[in-house]
Amino acid sequence: MTQPQDASTCAELAGRVIAAAKAAGTSLATAESLTAGMIAATLAEVPGASAVLQGGVVSYSSSVKARVLGVDPALLAERGSVDGEVARQMAEGARRACGADLAVSATGVAGPDAHDGKDVGTVFLGFASGSGSGFTEHRFAGDRAGIRFSSTVAALELLASHLVPSKHTA
Amino acid sequence: MTQPQDASTCAELAGRVIAAAKAAGTSLATAESLTAGMIAATLAEVPGASAVLQGGVVSYSSSVKARVLGVDPALLAERGSVDGEVARQMAEGARRACGADLAVSATGVAGPDAHDGKDVGTVFLGFASGSGSGFTEHRFAGDRAGIRFSSTVAALELLASHLVPSKHTA
Repeated sequence: MTQPQDASTCAELAGRVIAAAKAAGTSLATAESLTAGMIAATLAEVPGASAVLQGGVVSYSSSVKARVLGVDPALLAERGSVDGEVARQMAEGARRACGADLAVSATGVAGPDAHDGKDVGTVFLGFASGSGSGFTEHRFAGDRAGIRFSSTVAALELLASHLVPSKHTA
Repeated sequence: MTQPQDASTCAELAGRVIAAAKAAGTSLATAESLTAGMIAATLAEVPGASAVLQGGVVSYSSSVKARVLGVDPALLAERGSVDGEVARQMAEGARRACGADLAVSATGVAGPDAHDGKDVGTVFLGFASGSGSGFTEHRFAGDRAGIRFSSTVAALELLASHLVPSKHTA
């Protein structure tokens, strides 16, 4: 996983995601817990993002994860909100709620304190498309701001990785 | 309307909103179009924000405004998405979807191009609480990034203005 230095790297990555989504005709959605809107906001920095960005859900509380995204309440009660399967269901929920082709999600512990028995820096990213869904697990170093930034960059990279193979659909 | 110079002013304002919401026992939600998550993400910069921040909806497309936030599709068809009544309904929808006490929303034209017959810099902010709902209208100067930043600051100020009178409920 690359560790970009600054916000300009993040903006460049967002520009690549939007361009790739436009080229593939793929609409996008997000479901964000610890990043709380940073992924969607970074994508929307790109002029013309509205051609592909449908929107997203900031599911900061477990209640919003269940109510708006349809994450299984029993799963949340059993494993807490920082979990790979929760991330996968968040992405599925965002894709469904926003009517998008491809969705990414992020849930994790930004700190300063551990949460639900998970260490600070533990982050799960979910993805969902017409081909299926899944999640990735990460351990990010840094403070609250650094962990949220690293999570945003990794989510944009995850979107990019799902868009690059779509060249043949152009 | 004040025009803060930098991100630190924004973070200070977010800190005041979270502290006031905690003191008043008021939970918060957002509905964001042109800011696309910046308001919620700024609130979540504050450690412990999860005590009051429920979440929000990034309703970048009209479809998400109608589907997830329950904005009247006939209103969207008639007036477009940059409109005061749309902003008010977005805030109502976020409050309902997230089960929050107080919600703020933002819809407007960040540019670079005019949209739905509205000039770049035209922004409507909505608010909704148990006491009622409404909206404010703004004309912000600057480029795409500046207009989105000014909208975020104004939304945080709007939240603060609704929280200060709540001292007696502590």
